Amino acid sequence: MAEYNALPLVKLAEQFARLPGIGMKTAQRLAYYVLTMSEGEAKEFSEAITYAHRAVRKCEICQNFTEPKICPICDNPRRDSSTICVVEGPKDVAAFERTNEYKGKYHVLHGLISPIDGIGPDQLHIRELLARINDSNVDEVIMATNPTVEGEATAMYISRLLKPLGVKVTRLAFGLPIGGTLEYADEVTLYKALENRNEI
Amino acid sequence: MAEYNALPLVKLAEQFARLPGIGMKTAQRLAYYVLTMSEGEAKEFSEAITYAHRAVRKCEICQNFTEPKICPICDNPRRDSSTICVVEGPKDVAAFERTNEYKGKYHVLHGLISPIDGIGPDQLHIRELLARINDSNVDEVIMATNPTVEGEATAMYISRLLKPLGVKVTRLAFGLPIGGTLEYADEVTLYKALENRNEI
Repeated sequence: MAEYNALPLVKLAEQFARLPGIGMKTAQRLAYYVLTMSEGEAKEFSEAITYAHRAVRKCEICQNFTEPKICPICDNPRRDSSTICVVEGPKDVAAFERTNEYKGKYHVLHGLISPIDGIGPDQLHIRELLARINDSNVDEVIMATNPTVEGEATAMYISRLLKPLGVKVTRLAFGLPIGGTLEYADEVTLYKALENRNEI
Repeated sequence: MAEYNALPLVKLAEQFARLPGIGMKTAQRLAYYVLTMSEGEAKEFSEAITYAHRAVRKCEICQNFTEPKICPICDNPRRDSSTICVVEGPKDVAAFERTNEYKGKYHVLHGLISPIDGIGPDQLHIRELLARINDSNVDEVIMATNPTVEGEATAMYISRLLKPLGVKVTRLAFGLPIGGTLEYADEVTLYKALENRNEI
């Protein structure tokens, strides 16, 4: 412990450094910033952490983060219950909701199958997804995990479990991003765009 | 407020987004991460904020952040009291201490003169610096602010106040960074390196 930094400041920087994507330099900068806050602001920040951690839980149906037992999307009778969009995490739900196009429901896995990180299917909310298919009249499950090795593997694994249940399983389309150019597309994306070409 | 995000989560993300260099996307990612912490970890994080804010103050002499009234550097009789290194902020003290070369004391301004941001000399700890010069036997004041417009202006302003007090005022040397190459040095740095050349 260096003598030139007050201990509580070092401890706070260590806390920030535990957050994903925050290195020790940034953590120190953030810790210094907290000291420039007013007492009220620092209290608000501190309480937001404990409050979020205490008040937020996983929805009993879709497993998305929520304050009430059942999240507002699962609880909304105007959302189409026959379609479930399976995503890796809550931020993916937020991304789909921002499109204002999707009217079905979600299922949040809270992770992807990743043997390297020691994450197997049992650590994800796959069991709860299967229970939803059995319990209600679901027609289609959209696998909306990322186009990465883990995302593909998880989509494949789950689709193999779902198909015997007689439900239609679909995957997001992959191709050129809108506004992108052929010139700057990577080979895999371009190949996917070619392979998944549609008649016009 | 979007319905798909639990309110405490949104509030926590807003808190993170107030930190410098943290955008709304990163803030959301951090807020989600806090929810994956154990209850103990979240409590520790929350308490580190309030504790740092409550327990850390400015040293009565050098204004650096400290837990005791007088910081360990000012309180260290083996540090040379005749030299004061004037810096913008506490992280600059940390940077100098890491060199293990500087044996004098510091004075932390907590900012730089910046008319654009509405920061004048009165908002910095310049008064306290002048008081230190008057009170004790200081031989040299090293202006160690950054080589930016604000850093230069602040160094010039303070040196003009100090010189009538009969104290030697110096400025950090600017030139080629060690390990750098001429080819990649910008014009101003190269000019400074030429101008400040030393006999060998």
